[in-house]
Formats: sequence, C-alpha cells, structure tokens
Amino acid sequence: MNYKKGKQTKQFIIQQASHLFNTRGYAASSISDVMYVTGLKKGGIYNHFESKEELSIAAFEYSTQVLGEYYQSVTTTEKGCANKLFALANAIEAVAEGRLSPGGCPLMNAAIESDDGDPVLKDRVHLAMGRLLERVRLILRQGIQDGEVRGELDLEYVATVFIATLEGALMLSKLYGNTEHMKRAVRHVKNFINTEVCIMS
Amino acid sequence: MNYKKGKQTKQFIIQQASHLFNTRGYAASSISDVMYVTGLKKGGIYNHFESKEELSIAAFEYSTQVLGEYYQSVTTTEKGCANKLFALANAIEAVAEGRLSPGGCPLMNAAIESDDGDPVLKDRVHLAMGRLLERVRLILRQGIQDGEVRGELDLEYVATVFIATLEGALMLSKLYGNTEHMKRAVRHVKNFINTEVCIMS
Repeated sequence: MNYKKGKQTKQFIIQQASHLFNTRGYAASSISDVMYVTGLKKGGIYNHFESKEELSIAAFEYSTQVLGEYYQSVTTTEKGCANKLFALANAIEAVAEGRLSPGGCPLMNAAIESDDGDPVLKDRVHLAMGRLLERVRLILRQGIQDGEVRGELDLEYVATVFIATLEGALMLSKLYGNTEHMKRAVRHVKNFINTEVCIMS
Repeated sequence: MNYKKGKQTKQFIIQQASHLFNTRGYAASSISDVMYVTGLKKGGIYNHFESKEELSIAAFEYSTQVLGEYYQSVTTTEKGCANKLFALANAIEAVAEGRLSPGGCPLMNAAIESDDGDPVLKDRVHLAMGRLLERVRLILRQGIQDGEVRGELDLEYVATVFIATLEGALMLSKLYGNTEHMKRAVRHVKNFINTEVCIMS
C-alpha cells in the first residue's frame, strides 16, 4: 500500500468512526457499521486497526482533539478571565447546537457509556475530562495573577459548576431537540462568573 | 402458568433488566445478558415480553418510577420551597452515590443513549425528564403561592439550572468514582436557591 494513501485512509476511518460512535454509542456500533459508514471492506479496516477497541480509542481521541483545539482557539483570542470563560461557555453551546461534533459532546457520551463497563475507554474519558476541567482552572489561575479573581477562590468548585451545568444542559438540549436548556445554562454560568468568580475586574 | 407466579416473574425480569440496561446500556445489552442476570431461559423471558424493545421500555419505566416515588417522598415530608428543593438535590446526590439506582441516573443514561438512535425510548425519556423538571416547577409554584418566591421568577430557567447542574455533576462523579463533583454541585444549587430563588422566606 502507498504509505501516504494508507495514512489518509486510516484518518478517514477514524473520522467516520468517531461520528458513528459518538452518535450511536461505542458498544452498540459494530465493525459492520464502520464498514457501512466508510464504504470499506472488513479487511480494509483491520488493515489499520487490530480490533474495534483500538479503533474506538483512536476515534475518541480524535473527537476530543477536535473539540480541544476549538476550545483552545476561542479562549486564547479573548482577553481577560470573564471573556475567556464566556467564550468557552459559548463554544460548549455550539456543541449542543450540533456544530463541530455530530451526536453531542463526545466526552459526556463516552463518560455515560464507559463509566460502568469499559475500563480502557473510561481511562481516556477520565483524562480528557480532566483536561477540560483544567482548561477552566488555567483561565482562573491567570485571572488570579492578573488581579481579576480573588486568590482564595475554590478553583475546583468553579470548574465543576461550570462544566457540570453546561454538560447537563447539553444533555437536556439534545434530548429535547432544541437549545432552550443550553441557553438558560449559559445565562446562569455567565451570571455566576460575573457575580461570584471574576468580581474584581 | 400460575397467574400470580407469572406476574412475580415478569416483575423480577423487569427489575433485573433495569439494573442491567442502566449499567451497561440498552443497545449494548442482549437477551443473552438478560438470561444471565435473571437465570431464565430465552423462552422464560419471551413468555412475558414480545421483544427486547418491549422489555427495555418496561425496565426504563420501572427505573424512573422507583426514582420518582423516592423524589416524591423526600420532598413532600419537607416544609417550604427551599427545604423541598434542598431535599430533591440531596436525593439526586444519593443517586450519584449509587444508592437507589445501580449505574447512575436512569434518565440521563437513557437520554444520552437514545437521543440519536432510539425514538421509542427517547419519547419515554422525554416524558420522564419532563416530569422531573415539572417536579421542580411545582415546588416553585407552591413557593409563589406561599409568598416564598417572587411571582415573576422564570420557573423554566430555575428548573433547567437545578436539573442540568446536578445531572452534569452526577456524570462527573460517576466518571471519577467519587462524590466530590456532586458535593460541589449541591453546594452551588443550594446557594443559587438561597440567593436567587427562595429569597422572600
């Protein structure tokens, strides 16, 4: 096989599988489903991945990388703690609207699916969710340095409230097929930031 | 078959299946898995349910009924809007701690699983989540009648923030295998109720 073409095929399989797994679920999707969405034969898939598990992990990592890069880009262009957190909230709202990631937030979907059953995937979700929570704390630590946030603020508390509220609302918005719940959650999170977090700016 | 014994067997299958589906997922669990957790043969299951789909719906309804009755009992024994909402928050925290419902919140688990794939289950989740949100709004409406809550409060907004924050934290707590996230979310929700919702008591 041509090396470059093989690499492109592998990447194509990962992308298609990530959409499939994030929409239908990891355990509920079969290699036949991956064959269907890629248009490849079984051998064409196993040529690149030893098992469905290996493909699942690659697909999950791809999903979270795409989201992570988007979150990074929208927060770095903003100035100040509150604006960066607002941009991150808006970016999670964009996920609820079906932009960026078909099937909703890949972290939450994989978290719900793996928390009782798939220890390898669960470990990866663990790490990816840790990076998202740390993204919030990093913005807050910079805010403390810049004198926008009180030094004694409980960063773990703020990160949990921020992510839990938005991810929970994402689930509700996906369930009801509209963005009303997400809009309310974003409004609450922004109010929380303005009244309890970035209160020195 | 003895009618009473048949009814008991059916109920037993529903209970065991509800734990299985809530832990492993609906689509990812097979009738063989149901046979394993019930110790019954295939015919013994299909004697009571025409299909896995019929059993799935019965199991989901059973899970949400158990939770609904628990939420009802803990809130009706409390006096006043804030105390009732605190009791509901504590009850959702109990779900995160694995009490009441193995596998976490059956509403959120089924919501995440069905939102892209299973329209029949999704309709049921829709209704059950609607009842949970309405439970919050009912407490608030009583609070308005009793002069504890401002009449112009946006009840939809409060219900969304309350449920989204706690369900999102439940997902985080399940993922990390501890109740830290849930404790922070409960703290935030209680603070929200005290400072923005039940402020006239």
